Amino acid sequence: MVTTRGYQGIKYSKGSSRAVEDTLSVEEALQIYVNETVFTLTMRTPGDDPELVRGLLHSENVLKSIDYHPVVTFRKEEEDGVITRAFVKLPSEFVRESSLNARNLLSVSACGICGKTELDDLKSDAPELSDSRRFDVGLMPKLYAAMQDIQQTFNQSGGSHAAACFDDAGNLLSLREDIGRHNAVDKVVGELLLRDKFRKAQVLLVSGRISYEIVVKAFKARIPVLCAVSAPSSLAVDYAKELGLTLLAFCRDDRATCYAHPERLENKYLGQKAG
Amino acid sequence: MVTTRGYQGIKYSKGSSRAVEDTLSVEEALQIYVNETVFTLTMRTPGDDPELVRGLLHSENVLKSIDYHPVVTFRKEEEDGVITRAFVKLPSEFVRESSLNARNLLSVSACGICGKTELDDLKSDAPELSDSRRFDVGLMPKLYAAMQDIQQTFNQSGGSHAAACFDDAGNLLSLREDIGRHNAVDKVVGELLLRDKFRKAQVLLVSGRISYEIVVKAFKARIPVLCAVSAPSSLAVDYAKELGLTLLAFCRDDRATCYAHPERLENKYLGQKAG
Repeated sequence: MVTTRGYQGIKYSKGSSRAVEDTLSVEEALQIYVNETVFTLTMRTPGDDPELVRGLLHSENVLKSIDYHPVVTFRKEEEDGVITRAFVKLPSEFVRESSLNARNLLSVSACGICGKTELDDLKSDAPELSDSRRFDVGLMPKLYAAMQDIQQTFNQSGGSHAAACFDDAGNLLSLREDIGRHNAVDKVVGELLLRDKFRKAQVLLVSGRISYEIVVKAFKARIPVLCAVSAPSSLAVDYAKELGLTLLAFCRDDRATCYAHPERLENKYLGQKAG
Repeated sequence: MVTTRGYQGIKYSKGSSRAVEDTLSVEEALQIYVNETVFTLTMRTPGDDPELVRGLLHSENVLKSIDYHPVVTFRKEEEDGVITRAFVKLPSEFVRESSLNARNLLSVSACGICGKTELDDLKSDAPELSDSRRFDVGLMPKLYAAMQDIQQTFNQSGGSHAAACFDDAGNLLSLREDIGRHNAVDKVVGELLLRDKFRKAQVLLVSGRISYEIVVKAFKARIPVLCAVSAPSSLAVDYAKELGLTLLAFCRDDRATCYAHPERLENKYLGQKAG
């Protein structure tokens, strides 16, 4: 799957210009149908589309069970080759009641917030996360290095977001990149579900900033520790507090700042309990 | 209007931890009603809400005329104080046909793509931009400095996107920040419309990366030169080419790379024609 593409450019600097060829992140449309009705359209970087669809169905609360994986078929348009369609077959007994009604069919969207028009959509009825596993912030340099590695190796374009998931020993379970940060997270969640790693996940680390939508996706994936390389928004912190997630931000090298639920944290550098 | 807020945190580093108070960007919901029906819900940084609503109505092609500015009233919920509602009054003679039908009411969204379910929504029927004004890339350091100034002055949180608009002499027409890059652009476009600067705009400079949605918003605002501090996506370049926009990216200090329509560019550092 092509995730970057070469583009001709003209590079200008003080008084001079020269032709260059640059590698840019690919952004393409994926239109998702559920039982032959349009469900949503998302702009994503191609690759891991089965994981993206599975993760999106999970984030949008469409399925009754995390263990049921619907059949998804893909079709690329011949005429322009740009928009790919995904067709999901969903027997009604596996669909969460009302998740596919007329309103949701149109208002559901990949970014978790946009298109939602009812205030109640912002509140989840799932119980607060009460995962009692502890997380050693001393693992942060290892987690950050794993994120850095993939960004340096696979992303020459400067245009991708990354999301990585780890178990409670700091082992990498999944790492995905996408032009959209919500897609990167949905791809990771989809892989956890499809590869039977869902219950092992303890930590989700995302590149860049973190807003409310990512907190909700981590919560729905029951991942108790959410870490971001850059800043969180106010609402990300407010909801992490309310939903029971440990939220760490500005996670770089051996630093990290916790804004919600530090009681899960240890800092084993000195063998001390940090919370 | 409060755009940042102080949060208590615990900062961890090698073996130690200490309490800190950090300033984070505020992210809050704005629910927009048109003629008492829910139009959309967007997560935004409070401030410039009239500009945001006006720009969003423009980006979503709701109004027939750029010179008509509907009455918008705002109401903050008493119970939680978080979600603000905007009520737009729109006489039917000012509404573009079919822009407010049942499908669009639900599928329209602030980020320009999410929630749109029809492929045709991705193609605009507006004519290609044929603005013949030239742009001197030698102005880039001045434009970049204006962006840097505002980011250093107003944004201690590390969590905001900025968008700035300039006329063809490099004079700043509008500069706005928001937790969402699409909101920052909509706020700028709204200010151009409300302050009668719409036809003066030549250059839109955005912090961070640039994806398809921003190209579409610039196109609908008839701004011929779009510049980004970071990388563009493949589709941003493809659509800029198709829609007639000059697209510059990696615009930092005195450097910039053009990926679409360089024929508008000059590089006056050496008095030479660059295109």
